[in-house]
Order: sequence, then structure tokens, then C-alpha cells
Amino acid sequence: MSNQNPVCEEDVVICTHIHLIRNLRDVPFVSKMSRSERQKLEQRVASAVSENEGLSRVFRFIDMESLSKTEAVSLVERFLISADFLSDCRGRGLFVNEDETVSVMVNEEDHIHLQCEQAGLNLQKAFEKADGLDDILDKSLHFAFDENLGYLTQNPVNLGTGMRASLTLHLPALREGGGVSRISTNLSKLGLALRGALGSGAEPKGAVYQLSNHVTFGLSEQEAIANLQSIAMQLIEQERAARTELAESLEIQDTVSRSLAILQSARMMADDEFMQLISNVRFGVAAGLIDPIDYGELNRLMIMVQPATLTVAGGRKLTPTERRSLRAEKIRDFLQKLNA
Amino acid sequence: MSNQNPVCEEDVVICTHIHLIRNLRDVPFVSKMSRSERQKLEQRVASAVSENEGLSRVFRFIDMESLSKTEAVSLVERFLISADFLSDCRGRGLFVNEDETVSVMVNEEDHIHLQCEQAGLNLQKAFEKADGLDDILDKSLHFAFDENLGYLTQNPVNLGTGMRASLTLHLPALREGGGVSRISTNLSKLGLALRGALGSGAEPKGAVYQLSNHVTFGLSEQEAIANLQSIAMQLIEQERAARTELAESLEIQDTVSRSLAILQSARMMADDEFMQLISNVRFGVAAGLIDPIDYGELNRLMIMVQPATLTVAGGRKLTPTERRSLRAEKIRDFLQKLNA
Repeated sequence: MSNQNPVCEEDVVICTHIHLIRNLRDVPFVSKMSRSERQKLEQRVASAVSENEGLSRVFRFIDMESLSKTEAVSLVERFLISADFLSDCRGRGLFVNEDETVSVMVNEEDHIHLQCEQAGLNLQKAFEKADGLDDILDKSLHFAFDENLGYLTQNPVNLGTGMRASLTLHLPALREGGGVSRISTNLSKLGLALRGALGSGAEPKGAVYQLSNHVTFGLSEQEAIANLQSIAMQLIEQERAARTELAESLEIQDTVSRSLAILQSARMMADDEFMQLISNVRFGVAAGLIDPIDYGELNRLMIMVQPATLTVAGGRKLTPTERRSLRAEKIRDFLQKLNA
Repeated sequence: MSNQNPVCEEDVVICTHIHLIRNLRDVPFVSKMSRSERQKLEQRVASAVSENEGLSRVFRFIDMESLSKTEAVSLVERFLISADFLSDCRGRGLFVNEDETVSVMVNEEDHIHLQCEQAGLNLQKAFEKADGLDDILDKSLHFAFDENLGYLTQNPVNLGTGMRASLTLHLPALREGGGVSRISTNLSKLGLALRGALGSGAEPKGAVYQLSNHVTFGLSEQEAIANLQSIAMQLIEQERAARTELAESLEIQDTVSRSLAILQSARMMADDEFMQLISNVRFGVAAGLIDPIDYGELNRLMIMVQPATLTVAGGRKLTPTERRSLRAEKIRDFLQKLNA
């Protein structure tokens, strides 16, 4: 999540993703392809990348078949691939740049699913990067595009721009007030989806949500982005107002203060508890209840100690107890280094 | 709990109390006395105290009728009076020295209930102090003593020595192992009582217990003390062995580490939670799981933030929220000063 520019609205917006879904003109959709055809497509994408000096310098290729289950899940935790991409790894591959802000899934639901990430709210910058990459790849791969339907995709819901813009939001105060599901219902009428980013329950882990457009047809990329940006700004203001109110509560101040102390001192830390505590701390920083901690660092910590990513870092299979212990250790070290 | 001598077994024994129960020869038992008779007795005790230079210099008198309910409850929390002493304050008074290690209740169940406290396990020293005070008071007040029955007391269970020796023990590991009730049953056959010191449930607050003799007849003070001392040493060894085992557990290490961090950082602290956390910290110090903290300081903190004592320090009636907030503040300040 490195970014030279100032990061916008990062008290609420963790990061911005632009996804572009593309298919090659002369190749059947993924569901109709054999494994060897998929491997051949991987080769073609690899050639397209290697032909471009800019891309070949920054991208590395990960053959999904070569990964352990844990390594693959870690890619999901790092927002590099979708959970669906794991269901069948055969003939699937991933191109990813060094800081993991740009990636290309090959043979997910569609031939090409490219994704650009920016820290905070930065739809325009993320789109420009994705658009540039799209142009380069299109030159060699020739994406299927129809004058009336736009980019052709396997699932018709993606027809048109084939673009999903998505914001990862931290909404602890709106969640606390119970307003998220009402907001979510209203947004759905505006062509946007707001849903928990982590965990499947009504109370998503860490109060992390994803706001994205679900209409790709009948409006341009810029219109979709402007729409999302405008709604996001309203949501951000609502969250901030709710936070200001919440921060007055002594109970909340207590919770925030304890949460940081527990992260700094625990010897065992379960994933669910961690997500709740880091959410409390992030809120506390935003509300000025505790000393500032860089949001980017909090985001990094959040990803670093996710179950699979932690296990990969551990270098071997871990028992649940070992994982909780390693997580607590990583968190303590991380926070101590930040303070040093 | 100040003490020049090294404090013995203070990892398990919080403090030692010797109680002596006495009645004046020429005065009816308390239950038969009118309020004015009780006040007259207070006067006689006051005279006995003032006649002795050593006593008059160190004792102050507290008329129980002059206290607010909260101030009176604070005396219970500081182990200076019994809870029964509060039930009816009329004609009742308390003499107490400056560091609150020696006190005399006048007109509790009996005319005189004197009490000496020592930090840690120190039955002999506490008894010597109590015995010396007893001798001084006896000279002026002439306690009722029968060749066959010993000291005469209103309740026959106290006949004989009229002495209760009691040890305040911290038994977190034995409690955790569930062994306390079994031990308690066995001790009762040996003429000793082991019961929770704080709270009335099966799980006494803070794992604080009281071990005391319940036989005062048929054996001398020295025999009773030797008996209690010997049983206490066995109990201390059992607790230490259980602690060593418990300290191996990662869960327990986690609990201890978190408990200290929460005490250092909470903004609100309920009494029950505090007692559990301070118990965990005390255990952690004893087991070497955290940096040493002086036991005497932990004991001081434990008393300082008890509900009534805290309210008295607050100087006004506190709402439950204010009390929890003040408690958290006192604890944070106290621990910070210890670290400084």
C-alpha cells in the first residue's frame, strides 16, 4: 500500500481497488476451456507481459498449481486473488508486482481479471493504473469488445465496462449504531453494494466493509467512479459523525485503551479477537482517543497476522495454539517497533 | 502493613491477624447493655488508653456513630472492623493506630475486640503485639477470666483463649485446580476454618481466603498458633506446587500479561474485575511471569480501590460509573508511580 501522494480519507477508507474483467476474442470462455487450453492462455499472457519492458520488470508469475493451500489462502488474505480463484487451481495463474498493488488473475471466471490497489480513497489513480495496464495487454491479447454490449464477459452481470470499483471501508461507528444494514438496503437501489469484507455474519470482522458498484452496463467507467465517489463521501461523513458521538462515551474510551494494551501484551491471540481489537484501535486513532498510529501500518499489521499469511511466515504447519501464540508475538513486535 | 523485618511467605500470605476477645468483669455483656452504658464503657477504654503514654500517642478514637455509612464500610474493607460491627453503630467505637495495624473495637459482640496485623506470615509477632496490648488494657479494665473456662465471652465458642488467629491467603492456583473446598473440609476436622475472605460465593473474589483457628478452648494460644502455622506451611507448599504447574500454561501466561496491561490502561474498572486482575498479577509476580512488583504495594492497591474506601477518597457520593472511572484512574496512577 505504498503511495507517494497523501492518502485520502484513510481514517475511513482502508483502500481502493479497481477490477477490470476481460476476455480474449479468439478463445472460448474459461468454463469451456480444457486445462491445457488454460495453460496455453497463461503462456500468451506471460508473453504479453514479457514483451512490455515496464511490465516484465515489475511482474512475477505465480502458478496457482504450484502453491500449497495455505500459500494460496494467503493470497486471498492479501486481497490479491478472489476466494473463487482457489476452488480449482488447475491452469490458473497470477501476475503480481512487487508491492502487490497490481495483479492479474488468469483464468478466474474470465480470462483476465486485473486489479489495481491504492491506499485510502483514490478511485481515479487506481483506475488510471488499471486502464494503462488494460491498454498494454489489449495490444497483444485483443480483448473481446462489442459496440453495443461493451466488454464481453462470461457472466452477463459484468457486461459493459467489465469494471468493478471497490472501496474497503472501516465503519465501526455505523456498525455500533446498527445503521449499516439500512444504509446497505438504500445503496442497493443506487446500484451499489455494501457488504462485510471479512467473515460472513451480520457483524463482519473488524467492522471492515466493501462498497462497490454492481452496475457495469449503461454507464461509463468515469460515471461509475463518480457515482461511487459521491456515495462514499456521504458514507464517510456519516461514519465520522457517528464516531464523534461514540468517542464521548467513557465505555468506548475504556474499550479503545484496553484494546491497544491487550494487543501490546497478549501472549495468545485468536483471529476474531484480533480483528475486533485492531478495529477498536483504528477507531481510537481516528477519534484521537490514543496516540496516532500510521493507518498504513495498521493495515499492514491487519494483513500480516491473518491465519494463512501468518502460517506462511511461520514456515511450517502450525497448531491452532502455535498460530495464536505466533500472532500475539508478531503483533507485540510490530507495535513495539512502531513505538521505538 | 509497614514492617521493618523481612516479610515471610508473602507470595502466598497477604497478612496475619491476631484477634483477642475480652470482657470487663464488672459490666454485663454487650447485648445486655443500654446505649448509655456502652458509651460509658467507651469512656473507660478511652481512659485506659490515655493513661498509657505508649497507647495514647499512637491511638486515635473513631466514634462509629459519627461516621457515614461509606466511611464505616471503608473500615471493613481495611480489615479494621467486622461487618457485624456496622449493623448497629450506637455506642460503638474504634481505637486505631496510625498505620492501622492495631485496632480495638469497643462493644462489638464483646466489650473489647483487639486486633493486630502483620504483613505476610508472622503469627508470633502479631501475637506478641496483641498480648502486650491486652496486658496494658487488662491493668485498667480488669478482664473477666475464670480458672476453668479462661476468658469469658458472650458467645461460648470464644471461651478459653478468646483468641482468633487468622491468615489472609492468596490461593489462585489451588482455586484454579478446584482443590480448595476439599482442603477446607479436611482442615475443619483439624479445628481450622478456610473460607473466602471477600465475596460470598464458592469462588471468592481475587482468590483471597482466610485461614483461622476455630478452637479456643482446651489449648493454649501458643499451641493454637503452632497448629495454624504448621497447617499454613503445608497449604503454602501446596499452593506453590500448583502455581509452578499452572505457570507452564501459555493460556495462563497470556492471562497474566493481559491482566497487568488492562490494569495499566483501563478507563473503567468494576470491583469484581479488578479483584480478578490483581489476583492474576499477584500470581504472575510470584510465578516470575512478569517483572516483580512489591507485594506490599499490591496489597495497598487492593485495599485502596475497594468500593467504599475509593468513595471516601473521592470525597463525595459517586455514581457507579464515576466510581469505576475513579478506580481505573487510581490503579493507572498507582502502577505508573511504581514503574517510575
